Amino acid sequence: MDALISRLTAALGPAAVLTEPHDIAPYGEDWRGLYRNTPRAVLRPADTAGVAAAVALCAAAGVAIVPQGGNTSMVAGGIPSAPDAEIVLSLARLNRLRSVDRAGLTLVVEAGMTLRAAQLAAEAAGALLPLSISSEGSAQIGGVIATNAGGNNTLRFGNARDLVLGLEVVLPDGAIWHGLRALRKDNTGYALRQLFAGSEGTLGIITAAVLKLSPAPRERATCLVGLASVAAVLDLFARFRDEDDAALYAFEYISGTAMEINLRHMPDGRLPLGQSAAHYALIELATTRRNAALRTTIEAVLGDALEAGLIEDAAIALSEAQRLAFWALREHVSESQKREGASIKNDVSVPVASVPALLDRAATMLAKTYPDARMAAFGHIGDGNIHLNVITTADPEALMADVNAIVADLGGSFSAEHGVGLVKRAAFGQWRDETERGVMRRIKLALDPGGGMGPGKVF
Amino acid sequence: MDALISRLTAALGPAAVLTEPHDIAPYGEDWRGLYRNTPRAVLRPADTAGVAAAVALCAAAGVAIVPQGGNTSMVAGGIPSAPDAEIVLSLARLNRLRSVDRAGLTLVVEAGMTLRAAQLAAEAAGALLPLSISSEGSAQIGGVIATNAGGNNTLRFGNARDLVLGLEVVLPDGAIWHGLRALRKDNTGYALRQLFAGSEGTLGIITAAVLKLSPAPRERATCLVGLASVAAVLDLFARFRDEDDAALYAFEYISGTAMEINLRHMPDGRLPLGQSAAHYALIELATTRRNAALRTTIEAVLGDALEAGLIEDAAIALSEAQRLAFWALREHVSESQKREGASIKNDVSVPVASVPALLDRAATMLAKTYPDARMAAFGHIGDGNIHLNVITTADPEALMADVNAIVADLGGSFSAEHGVGLVKRAAFGQWRDETERGVMRRIKLALDPGGGMGPGKVF
Ligand SMILES: Cc1cc2nc3c(=O)[nH]c(=O)nc-3n(C[C@H](O)[C@H](O)[C@H](O)COP(=O)(O)OP(=O)(O)OC[C@H]3O[C@@H](n4cnc5c(N)ncnc54)[C@H](O)[C@@H]3O)c2cc1C
Ligand SMILES: Cc1cc2nc3c(=O)[nH]c(=O)nc-3n(C[C@H](O)[C@H](O)[C@H](O)COP(=O)(O)OP(=O)(O)OC[C@H]3O[C@@H](n4cnc5c(N)ncnc54)[C@H](O)[C@@H]3O)c2cc1C
Repeated sequence: MDALISRLTAALGPAAVLTEPHDIAPYGEDWRGLYRNTPRAVLRPADTAGVAAAVALCAAAGVAIVPQGGNTSMVAGGIPSAPDAEIVLSLARLNRLRSVDRAGLTLVVEAGMTLRAAQLAAEAAGALLPLSISSEGSAQIGGVIATNAGGNNTLRFGNARDLVLGLEVVLPDGAIWHGLRALRKDNTGYALRQLFAGSEGTLGIITAAVLKLSPAPRERATCLVGLASVAAVLDLFARFRDEDDAALYAFEYISGTAMEINLRHMPDGRLPLGQSAAHYALIELATTRRNAALRTTIEAVLGDALEAGLIEDAAIALSEAQRLAFWALREHVSESQKREGASIKNDVSVPVASVPALLDRAATMLAKTYPDARMAAFGHIGDGNIHLNVITTADPEALMADVNAIVADLGGSFSAEHGVGLVKRAAFGQWRDETERGVMRRIKLALDPGGGMGPGKVF
Repeated sequence: MDALISRLTAALGPAAVLTEPHDIAPYGEDWRGLYRNTPRAVLRPADTAGVAAAVALCAAAGVAIVPQGGNTSMVAGGIPSAPDAEIVLSLARLNRLRSVDRAGLTLVVEAGMTLRAAQLAAEAAGALLPLSISSEGSAQIGGVIATNAGGNNTLRFGNARDLVLGLEVVLPDGAIWHGLRALRKDNTGYALRQLFAGSEGTLGIITAAVLKLSPAPRERATCLVGLASVAAVLDLFARFRDEDDAALYAFEYISGTAMEINLRHMPDGRLPLGQSAAHYALIELATTRRNAALRTTIEAVLGDALEAGLIEDAAIALSEAQRLAFWALREHVSESQKREGASIKNDVSVPVASVPALLDRAATMLAKTYPDARMAAFGHIGDGNIHLNVITTADPEALMADVNAIVADLGGSFSAEHGVGLVKRAAFGQWRDETERGVMRRIKLALDPGGGMGPGKVF
């Protein structure tokens, strides 16, 4: 190890190689504070050549690496798999904007740029990078792509993978794949960039990406709606979608329980409706059209829905400040739940039409088996992705298994948004049959025969 | 071979195993009539189990297979790599609609269903399968996914890969990967379905797919515009995109030469403009919105463009019949060029903003080096994908190399839409460096160690 550190220091410079315990400790703690796996060392190369040199040296020495972005992973993906198990390679210094092409609507950024900074770079060019997640101030482009992050606008624009046109990747042997192409169409061999996207740092280190932008919307309109049932929420979703699917940028769900907890813990949190409801939908329309009068569209759809007895109450944001206040209610849900106490997080998805069945069956199961449990569900209901969080002191393993049984029965996923990482490896083993896992394992082995890239993640 | 045929006949039934020369010959001829590689035999299993059994038997016997869909490949992908080299496995009998979910907007179809039939199944459910290519009457879902086909609406909805939510695949050893999930979000391990999409039959046989649908548009508006330069075409594209990118379903390009050839060979072909132009754009807007008045949008954008001196002439379709007539002009371009005589097909792409440079530089090069050449370019200009076809008696290899040099210099692709197949393997070798090809080859070897699936394609 000492010889390797010397070689790394010679290659990257002393400032890029951290070994002091107090320097490296923070890189070993996950965002949720559940794991503390201090790395053997931390590397902070300044550019792609530095990453390649570091990876080659570590591979030659047989020492494994875990790439780390903003370290906001919900499944402890960015930290070592065990104390002292790997070297962390941080992308933080690769944070440059390489170029932006407004006519072609593409953005080339390095992996260590935060998602927020990339959004601002797009904005400065008069365009939209249509991916937004609560952690965007810390999460980095590399981490966002490596986890195939999804957010509020996934409904309209897809997950991170769908926004990647090209990648630059340092492979497990230190070779550089120059795939930084800015083409909308290119059928030349296998889908490598889609494969690296979502591979959670196990196949290589993303050092830069070409991202697909959209024209910036000229108008947005946002409303918060109270409803009596999840079926009604889904019915309302279908109405908006069939009315103007292209303008439907977000359709988010907050359960009554999640909202109640939220209002209790949020500074200045208040419900902009006359009465509380069992379920809430936060809906945003947006468009590049001029004079689109999206508020009129919202009024028309909500008017019909009210008449049909579908909704109980609704408020349309009348100013940008109100719009942001509505969104703050959604964004604060995670933080409020953290303050409320121990919660078990189920990041699940089902076919969109099965969301009511999922929530009904989960509620029945919880009432029967876990009397102290409160289900504080919320999520991207338009994608069928529900954070079926449960506030309880019950055993997480048992409860997750019971939730997952329902999800499986509905043809769903136990890992819809945040990936497998360190935390869900066991579940992954149970959920995917040997054939599917075999194909994935063979890909891993083919690209990383030495097993030096993100060991202990996914598999 | 005889023993294998007996086992296949026992497993699939005699009607599913063709060996007579006159039965199997058509399966060995490619659509363009350039190759005639008669297969060793043709298998026509009726279902997934039959495909799996056939693949397992062939693998055990060490006999390679090429999967064939509608056999409309432009790169001879669906036929054997040489006369008598492989067995063709046709998916034609796996043509059932498995299910359609209007609320969830998903369609589950078998691989042998034609794209046209799948579109109609979506339509019958009040939805849109937003992929359309001229060969859709024959091309099958499996082939469309295996080639990651793109079409007129790729600009708005992406290529085939982007429409696939789940796949069922028979792997090279005969095992079945049950990946037929209908989830919009699912981050569980590697992007297998994206990898199989576009793998051109070299990693496994797609037997069924879950496709993502969209709500059917309520309104469409279409126009044909004559312009003096490619730069003006691109400027007009940017104006439409920035006006209402969500409604821009298609923005197609036809060069003056391509249009002239077209009008000469098309029965009833006539130009709906007052005068001919050097370049044409065919533009379609569509939306699910009620009373969207898309024609007014077109008029406004064209009005501004006319004032800015950008366009020379324009016609807006005033009826569905007119709309179809405009599209017929675009759809007939390939056929007309076939009738015109020997042409060299370059299926290239560049970053969207570089299309004018591409066409200008290609014209200059052709005028200088190939005096008899006529450049009859057309294509999906909004995606940067141009079919830079050249009518000439010159040596195809030399001319393609000269075109490709320009494309490479602009950071483009020599294989934007139709894939590599049998025809572009040499170019693939020149265009991608050893690192990139190495990664692909290792994936191929990992998933198909025996090399029995589509040998001689891509690599
Ligand atoms: C408050 C909060 C809200 C969140 N909301 C969302 C949400 O809405 N949607 C969502 O999808 N996620 C969400 N997340 C999870 C997390 O933010 C995302 O997974 C994010 O994409 C991780 O980015 P990161 O840079 O922090 O990656 P890290 O946490 O550092 O790493 C994540 C994984 O990616 C790998 N990795 C990191 N960088 C690279 C690279 N350059 N090359 C290769 N592999 C790399 C790591 O090894 C690890 O496996 C949320 C997290 C928090 C804390
Ligand atoms: C007139 C015309 C217009 C065209 N227009 C377009 C266009 O606009 N856009 C475009 O992208 N293409 C176009 N093409 C090319 C062609 O139609 C597409 O590539 C189409 O997707 C091929 O589908 P197919 O079923 O005919 O596949 P085939 O030609 O039978 O096979 C194509 C490749 O896919 C593999 N394959 C087929 N089925 C399967 C399966 N079930 N599982 C695994 N592998 C399989 C084959 O082995 C082969 O490598 C056009 C072709 C013609 C003749």
